[in-house]
Amino acid sequence: MKRAEKTTTLTADFDVYVDLPSTMKGSHLSRNLEVVSEIVEEGVREPVESLEDLSSLIARRLLEKHEYANYSEVRTSADYFLERMTPLGTRTTERYRLIARAEAERGGPVQVTKSIGVEVVGMTACPCAMETIKHHLDERGKLQGTEVPIITHNQRNITRVLVEVPESLEVEADDLIDMVEDSLSSPTFEILKRGDEAELVERAHAHPRFVEDVVREILARLLKKYQHFPDEARVRVTSESEESIHKHNALAERVTTFGELRK
Amino acid sequence: MKRAEKTTTLTADFDVYVDLPSTMKGSHLSRNLEVVSEIVEEGVREPVESLEDLSSLIARRLLEKHEYANYSEVRTSADYFLERMTPLGTRTTERYRLIARAEAERGGPVQVTKSIGVEVVGMTACPCAMETIKHHLDERGKLQGTEVPIITHNQRNITRVLVEVPESLEVEADDLIDMVEDSLSSPTFEILKRGDEAELVERAHAHPRFVEDVVREILARLLKKYQHFPDEARVRVTSESEESIHKHNALAERVTTFGELRK
Amino acid sequence: MKRAEKTTTLTADFDVYVDLPSTMKGSHLSRNLEVVSEIVEEGVREPVESLEDLSSLIARRLLEKHEYANYSEVRTSADYFLERMTPLGTRTTERYRLIARAEAERGGPVQVTKSIGVEVVGMTACPCAMETIKHHLDERGKLQGTEVPIITHNQRNITRVLVEVPESLEVEADDLIDMVEDSLSSPTFEILKRGDEAELVERAHAHPRFVEDVVREILARLLKKYQHFPDEARVRVTSESEESIHKHNALAERVTTFGELRK
Amino acid sequence: MKRAEKTTTLTADFDVYVDLPSTMKGSHLSRNLEVVSEIVEEGVREPVESLEDLSSLIARRLLEKHEYANYSEVRTSADYFLERMTPLGTRTTERYRLIARAEAERGGPVQVTKSIGVEVVGMTACPCAMETIKHHLDERGKLQGTEVPIITHNQRNITRVLVEVPESLEVEADDLIDMVEDSLSSPTFEILKRGDEAELVERAHAHPRFVEDVVREILARLLKKYQHFPDEARVRVTSESEESIHKHNALAERVTTFGELRK
Repeated sequence: MKRAEKTTTLTADFDVYVDLPSTMKGSHLSRNLEVVSEIVEEGVREPVESLEDLSSLIARRLLEKHEYANYSEVRTSADYFLERMTPLGTRTTERYRLIARAEAERGGPVQVTKSIGVEVVGMTACPCAMETIKHHLDERGKLQGTEVPIITHNQRNITRVLVEVPESLEVEADDLIDMVEDSLSSPTFEILKRGDEAELVERAHAHPRFVEDVVREILARLLKKYQHFPDEARVRVTSESEESIHKHNALAERVTTFGELRK
Repeated sequence: MKRAEKTTTLTADFDVYVDLPSTMKGSHLSRNLEVVSEIVEEGVREPVESLEDLSSLIARRLLEKHEYANYSEVRTSADYFLERMTPLGTRTTERYRLIARAEAERGGPVQVTKSIGVEVVGMTACPCAMETIKHHLDERGKLQGTEVPIITHNQRNITRVLVEVPESLEVEADDLIDMVEDSLSSPTFEILKRGDEAELVERAHAHPRFVEDVVREILARLLKKYQHFPDEARVRVTSESEESIHKHNALAERVTTFGELRK
Repeated sequence: MKRAEKTTTLTADFDVYVDLPSTMKGSHLSRNLEVVSEIVEEGVREPVESLEDLSSLIARRLLEKHEYANYSEVRTSADYFLERMTPLGTRTTERYRLIARAEAERGGPVQVTKSIGVEVVGMTACPCAMETIKHHLDERGKLQGTEVPIITHNQRNITRVLVEVPESLEVEADDLIDMVEDSLSSPTFEILKRGDEAELVERAHAHPRFVEDVVREILARLLKKYQHFPDEARVRVTSESEESIHKHNALAERVTTFGELRK
Repeated sequence: MKRAEKTTTLTADFDVYVDLPSTMKGSHLSRNLEVVSEIVEEGVREPVESLEDLSSLIARRLLEKHEYANYSEVRTSADYFLERMTPLGTRTTERYRLIARAEAERGGPVQVTKSIGVEVVGMTACPCAMETIKHHLDERGKLQGTEVPIITHNQRNITRVLVEVPESLEVEADDLIDMVEDSLSSPTFEILKRGDEAELVERAHAHPRFVEDVVREILARLLKKYQHFPDEARVRVTSESEESIHKHNALAERVTTFGELRK
């Protein structure tokens, strides 16, 4: 798999579907596995560009093999790793999740819609508790002129972005990951020395975010980056915080189109 | 199910096992299900004392039904709910997990060992980042005499305690839950008004805890509460924090006996 | 919870959502939990009719509490148990999963759409392998006039039905469970004596089914049972077989309306 | 990663542990991640022999870095793929799971024990139902001289073998996979043409197996293959069938030593 000049080997699961006309009793399921297998083997000889292009290829081939089907769908995801720098410059390898989908539809030439997405684990710090605590401290006269950052609850957050575009348009997964990490209170890292840890915690408290804020910021960044995308291009952003003060999670989601976002 | 004066209805899954002598080809598995079913039905008519007593009953009955077996084991767990008060006095219902096991062994009269446990979701705040940040702020001259609580990363924590005792001894699950919640940086609640949220966050920052601390505090509380337990009584404590600054978790575990703890 | 003359106690998880106007920064999440909590407590005093009515109640109350929201959604599911008879008449308790959803929308009076569903674990036997093997045996002259059932692969199957109707219409979960079990190769049971086991295996081989067949049979039964449902009433049927001869599953799904089914 | 002449790239998760003397407050957790990261990076330059050798390397390095610790443990697993031939000779790629563990203990020179294991998905056909049905058919006079295979329930089975040996001994994961597949009613394949499917189903019905049988057969094969292993070498075999006629699974497990097996 090539992505941004790098060639990476990924392990991916594929879910593949075709529609079945009501006149047919059963689908030739083994063909689905043959298609995936053929394309993956070709890919071993000559790497494809991306997980979404691989999915598009499989979706097209499915329609060729199942001549009775008018619609095919491929869903896949894979672990993905990027080298990052911590606040104080330690190199770490961070894990992300790539998501890709392709839907092919017969009707004249086959039309393919592809979706590219990422899942990013990061951190949010709550603006609401921070505000209330600041107020409490002030009332008790403890803030007099100090500029210390105010405590709040913070937690692990999982944010997912999925962009659906016509086959000809490109979305770079690395860009999506950057947009998500910039929209959270802070990205997180697997290796942090003491100084790094302090810097990261201070960064998160300087950028408190509700899950609703994370979703909004990502949508704004997407709109700015992909100004040339058609109005029909769709996007789904979901941000979930594993609230440290509750046993339940907080989740915000928006499913919309670039047309809607432009209004 | 009765527990501390309350009669509650729980939904529990049971895993049941018996040993199989090497001279036998297959086990009569359907008998296992019959035993569970019979005892659960008897329980509908007359509630048993606790999940662990129910497990002991099933373990004993298994040995009666499988006359060729010398050992039987029952494992079960169930959601469990307690009414709690938030820091400012709102009533909420909190979810916990009860765990019970029973092992019965033939050899003269049947010997049963039972285990009672709980799984509790709470919150930890990191003492190490707090210390480093305090030092940083001090160096930059920002602390001058103020008593503001210092920021740190905090997160959801899952802690599990399992105590294994002879059949005649009693361990109250509600007590185990209290001991865990007292050992965390703070318990968590499903419903928190703004003021509650602030109080809880302040409480957590006043009691920073590594997962290692949580395990140590629980063991100390167990030893104090169950002074009459024999040296062979076993305990396993596991505390896992879903680190907000990392994508991985931190876990501490100790498996020991009351005899070891007394040394 | 009452269902078909029985009053049962269920443990259910609720996911609740409200929309958020773009002019508001954050949602008052704690209100969601308060609503669930209030209604569950009222339910303790006076049982509601069903899980879907409870969901509708919560969805309505959410719109009352979040005066800025125009849309609310509640999703829940719970383990559910029915007493069944095995082929030879042993009584067993079988576990199912109830699913309920409610969506409330402001606009004049609040409109509520509710969904009722079930998840049923059963068994499918493959018609295709049976056919091929029959042919093979016949070619080798092994079938001469015998009426022995032909071997095939069979496996655990999980089938899910979800019906979405206006608030005023009723769907009985027990009926949905019956329709699913009648559409599979065979229902399954927790306790089976030897004779039961043989009967069940023979039954499954007498009714071989692809996942596509299971979906089609359920849709036909739904259409017959709910002739009075409006064209807009929606239904989603998903059947997944954990193929014993593959490491992957086979899945069939149809999302449609009663109007489409009537064509 | 090299294994049996092949160099493969695997994605693996590592869980790493060190013990903590009671005199220390907290562990230097970031060192654990540094060790994993260093060794994985060295491995990128020069592939290590196997997942278990990588684990041993990490376990040793952990004791070097945590000078206060006397014990370290590493657990990991990774997807693993082998090319297989179906009964009629189609090539397919099958997925397995590799498991590795290493425990290092200080005390004079550091002692390392390593565990190598596999998880294999296959198929079992039930001997008991087959016997009862055969008897039924015979009673009804339907078997008269025919040699048709008798129907029974069959299902997906997951079997796991873990062998623990001193660091100097080698266990080849591919051999373990072969032993498991030979002990099941039949291995399974991702791609099966019709003829393959029939052959596989017939094969499974010719080798009916309880989960107890699967465990016993694997132990016999291990004992034969590894005659030179010391008595203290340990083995754990677990076989779980997702019973198609029940909603619950059947599980057999044996934890033993080569010494015990030799008795």
